[in-house]
Amino acid sequence: MISVEDARDRILAGLHPTPAETVPLAEAWGRVGAADVRARVRQPPADVSAMDGYALRAEDGSLGARLRVVGTAPAGHPWSGTLAPGEAVRLFTGSFIPPGADGILLQEDATEADGVVTVNEPTAKGRHIRRAGQDFCSGDVLVPAGKRLSVRDIGLAASGNHPWLSVHRRPRVAILATGDEIALPGEPIPPGGIVSSNAHALAAFVRAVGGEPMVLPIALDTLDAIAAGADAARGADLLVTTGGASVGDHDLVQAGLAARGFSLDFWKIAMRPGKPLMFGSVAGLPALGLPGNPVSAIVCAVLFLQPALAKLSGLPAAPPPRTRATLAAPLPANDHRADHLRARLNVAADGSLHATAFERQDSAMMRLLATADALILRAPHAPAVAAGETVEVIRLEGLGV
Amino acid sequence: MISVEDARDRILAGLHPTPAETVPLAEAWGRVGAADVRARVRQPPADVSAMDGYALRAEDGSLGARLRVVGTAPAGHPWSGTLAPGEAVRLFTGSFIPPGADGILLQEDATEADGVVTVNEPTAKGRHIRRAGQDFCSGDVLVPAGKRLSVRDIGLAASGNHPWLSVHRRPRVAILATGDEIALPGEPIPPGGIVSSNAHALAAFVRAVGGEPMVLPIALDTLDAIAAGADAARGADLLVTTGGASVGDHDLVQAGLAARGFSLDFWKIAMRPGKPLMFGSVAGLPALGLPGNPVSAIVCAVLFLQPALAKLSGLPAAPPPRTRATLAAPLPANDHRADHLRARLNVAADGSLHATAFERQDSAMMRLLATADALILRAPHAPAVAAGETVEVIRLEGLGV
Repeated sequence: MISVEDARDRILAGLHPTPAETVPLAEAWGRVGAADVRARVRQPPADVSAMDGYALRAEDGSLGARLRVVGTAPAGHPWSGTLAPGEAVRLFTGSFIPPGADGILLQEDATEADGVVTVNEPTAKGRHIRRAGQDFCSGDVLVPAGKRLSVRDIGLAASGNHPWLSVHRRPRVAILATGDEIALPGEPIPPGGIVSSNAHALAAFVRAVGGEPMVLPIALDTLDAIAAGADAARGADLLVTTGGASVGDHDLVQAGLAARGFSLDFWKIAMRPGKPLMFGSVAGLPALGLPGNPVSAIVCAVLFLQPALAKLSGLPAAPPPRTRATLAAPLPANDHRADHLRARLNVAADGSLHATAFERQDSAMMRLLATADALILRAPHAPAVAAGETVEVIRLEGLGV
Repeated sequence: MISVEDARDRILAGLHPTPAETVPLAEAWGRVGAADVRARVRQPPADVSAMDGYALRAEDGSLGARLRVVGTAPAGHPWSGTLAPGEAVRLFTGSFIPPGADGILLQEDATEADGVVTVNEPTAKGRHIRRAGQDFCSGDVLVPAGKRLSVRDIGLAASGNHPWLSVHRRPRVAILATGDEIALPGEPIPPGGIVSSNAHALAAFVRAVGGEPMVLPIALDTLDAIAAGADAARGADLLVTTGGASVGDHDLVQAGLAARGFSLDFWKIAMRPGKPLMFGSVAGLPALGLPGNPVSAIVCAVLFLQPALAKLSGLPAAPPPRTRATLAAPLPANDHRADHLRARLNVAADGSLHATAFERQDSAMMRLLATADALILRAPHAPAVAAGETVEVIRLEGLGV
């Protein structure tokens, strides 16, 4: 049995980012950039007004001065002349400053009548003028490669004049649930069978972390069925299997995949829930074997599948985001397996997090898992922890999990 | 001018959840349930083994006892007989417990040879047996209505035997950017014009919070163009406009929409950035007017559009999620407008958050906004705050913003 960290490192070492594809800006939100997005224009494109008012020579803007209004320059309709002494041009937020002008008289500090504007507050040179390129200049990196594109990144890429973006292809994940005893929801349930939840929970997980799931037909517990599953996964970036539990998790899956040249990297890790995790590759296709138990499958997905998808997506390889919380109730010492306690989180008035592990940690209780806010991480052989001490937790909600 | 809170309340009062639609379980992740999801089966369906081993009468499981192995029951293949005294049945995790059996001899505590298994550890009645319905029973509410469906909810709904789910239709949001000066990325830029970022940033925002954007063609600054935009928005659940800045934000938008029967609820709120927010309805279609300034538009989207989409989606109406952070640098007293300071967050070793407002808060700097982790909320007339005191913040990343 190897450690959670070793297992994750070995999985990540076997995975490589997907190649780039070009997508419309309008479909790029949430995707991972495959190239730096550099500005193709500068912003603002010229010196512009930050306010509604009048452009003038600042030296003309003394209290009580009266200037001739020689034009109007709404945004998008710049005034074409050059401002002479004693002249003013009406303008608005975003209007280009006409040549010759270096001051802005605010609308609320002006009185206009009969084509003449009177200065009611002296104007200062350069004030209320946004300089060309103040936000960015051509060639500036607006969004670095390898970042999941946020709403603001999309706005920036648009401002930088990009109708298309280069992003990593969504990782395709083939999901193969195995077992004679499982049936998809709504289908006839075999005698002694149960309704299968893993395939669609994992498909949702893959979507939640930015991948594209392919749910393969359920494989019965035969070598041929499992080998056929591996065939059906061709073209995927990752094959995820679950179960094989009827004769011990993965015994049968390994044997079935062996018919297609499976090469095992590791099997079984020192953790709870989820010991029978498996990783290897089938003819170049990385294959991650998750436990058939639904709770173990989800916990293993958080610990291993999320980082795997991140790496395939072009994001930095990293463990799932952790944070610290204060323990609300004590925990006993841990044994030799890393534990992942389902827990509730409360936010105190000062914003700090308080974690309480559920009393029952039965890995067969999916409904209990669904109400958990976080997993409390317990390292192998971790000593007992008193209430009030801090522990590391993985929050589940933030991942959409 | 009204307050941010009043504005939000009035917007939310004007919106109602979208009706339900039926979607495949496989497409329901991230959607909002329109009905309670109740279990249609119980889980486990019968008493099942929690481990690999042998089923037996617990009273037969004394140390050194030898039992005849009369059958095997892999998961999905229950043994059809009734266990008699002195008999054992081989079974595996998830196997149904045969009638007559009430104990489990673990595989690691047994030696099997020639059809006889020897008990190496005494067995206890009921131990390692998961009772029928331990996780849930038929009719139990697995996922309540009005919740955004997580990965775990999808797993639970699958376990509960639901191939289809009833969810609120994604709110359709028509986005109408206005202005003579703006051009979509990659299109010819008019003289004195800029590249438009609002429409696609807001479309990404709508997607990020679970809605379906419709980006309408840019409306020039004419009454007819804006009225035509309102026509094109028909069938949407919400019309969002931006700008109209060339003659003062929304003056023209209001006048243009008036031709289609616009009824104004409010205009202008006491906040920064984003004062010229507008809300009303056009022939029954709620219309939210956002400022043309890209930074103001995003901040207003966080404060108003996210809660609006939540309510339309069937989620509880609520302000955007806030948390508390310790101020890393002091802030001066605030004026009469609620302020939303772009800020960086750092996480201390104990997990607490520390916020530092950017020195520049220029609402024209989109690139600066893109690097912000949070908005620090400053109430109207809030007194100066010293470093080390706590402030309320809205984290931007969690929203995908």
